[in-house]
Amino acid sequence: MRRWDFTQNLFSRTMRKQLKTRTMTDLLTALEWRYATKSFNSSVRLTDLQLDVLKKAVQLSVSSFGLQPYKVFIIDSQEVKSAIMEAAYGQKQIGEASHVFVFAHQRQYQSKEVEDLIVKLAENQGRKVEELQPYQQSIDSWMGAMSDEKLETWMSSQVHIAMNNLLLAAATLGIDSCPMGGFDIEKVDDILGLKSEGLKSCLIVPVGVRNDKDIYANYPKTRKSISELFEVR
Amino acid sequence: MRRWDFTQNLFSRTMRKQLKTRTMTDLLTALEWRYATKSFNSSVRLTDLQLDVLKKAVQLSVSSFGLQPYKVFIIDSQEVKSAIMEAAYGQKQIGEASHVFVFAHQRQYQSKEVEDLIVKLAENQGRKVEELQPYQQSIDSWMGAMSDEKLETWMSSQVHIAMNNLLLAAATLGIDSCPMGGFDIEKVDDILGLKSEGLKSCLIVPVGVRNDKDIYANYPKTRKSISELFEVR
Repeated sequence: MRRWDFTQNLFSRTMRKQLKTRTMTDLLTALEWRYATKSFNSSVRLTDLQLDVLKKAVQLSVSSFGLQPYKVFIIDSQEVKSAIMEAAYGQKQIGEASHVFVFAHQRQYQSKEVEDLIVKLAENQGRKVEELQPYQQSIDSWMGAMSDEKLETWMSSQVHIAMNNLLLAAATLGIDSCPMGGFDIEKVDDILGLKSEGLKSCLIVPVGVRNDKDIYANYPKTRKSISELFEVR
Repeated sequence: MRRWDFTQNLFSRTMRKQLKTRTMTDLLTALEWRYATKSFNSSVRLTDLQLDVLKKAVQLSVSSFGLQPYKVFIIDSQEVKSAIMEAAYGQKQIGEASHVFVFAHQRQYQSKEVEDLIVKLAENQGRKVEELQPYQQSIDSWMGAMSDEKLETWMSSQVHIAMNNLLLAAATLGIDSCPMGGFDIEKVDDILGLKSEGLKSCLIVPVGVRNDKDIYANYPKTRKSISELFEVR
């Protein structure tokens, strides 16, 4: 199992003390620990409690205007996993994993969702719905002005945030995962009956426990360097 | 300051014990603690070490094929912050925050980036570059087949993952943030000279410490319910 190497790294014990927190080191440790798992131990099943934590983390995801324009299917049935595996060009992680999360976004902007959001916001903020109507109108006009292509980009982006919450929450629990974007969208939509629900599949994430023999667990991470990624202005 | 209410919630102390970990509780606590900060305390400046941790978390982000098709500008100059604030319709968080992260994605697919990735992968996996050529070709053909619109969706989605790593890392350190997608992209591109670098601004995230008077910190979170979001199959 790969471990964060404090001797080789920016985050020495001294620095951890300076930060006066263990939490961040834990998240960084989790980020280092996780990898795109190529093979799962199919005999290990996640507990309901572990799944509850993963769901809670996805639920708390940030989204544009708070709209959360998606639904998440948790595949438990081996038969459905097999069908999705086939639609994902036979990638075996899907068949082996304890559970498979399928993230689907809405096909169209639904102003009814903004109405529902405004009602909830008013309740949470102790305000009248009428007070929030200018805000409702501004969301409606912002969203309504989007072309189909921009809307698809917006929807996909929101799903990727939620998916990332799943990956990070899983990693901090020592649960393995593998985000997958390469699959036959129409086939997955057919398998889950998404089109009639106004949804379109976007990402598949098998979760479970890695197979000890998965060699990919041992490779160092391949990432752009800090200097390639960042520039101060 | 809003706190995770264990008595009202799924995640009781007993459940935490069952999970045999504090880590996840910490991430959920952080997710509950954070909110889209509407007002920052402009007198508090993040330390270099805090910024290093945030950068490290962004660097470790998951991305499709590991390509990380983006660059992140950390705005420290008050003058540049003011210009960006104006391009973001005057949203004052940008001027008040300690630092402002601007995420920009590539404008076009660059096969040179895949070449670089393959060289790094070969090194990290102890393999010859030639062995990875079929993989390189498959990425190249997958990416090359994308329409401009699909590419934009793909790029934006990758940026949203990295941005989410920033938000979560910040929250676990008790650093506040506010993700913003509503701004004049062309103006921000002009301010930072992004077009000539082949980049396009996508997201702005002011980070720092909340203003104690920001009333938004006290509102309960507004999210879809678990039953609205999830379905088991």
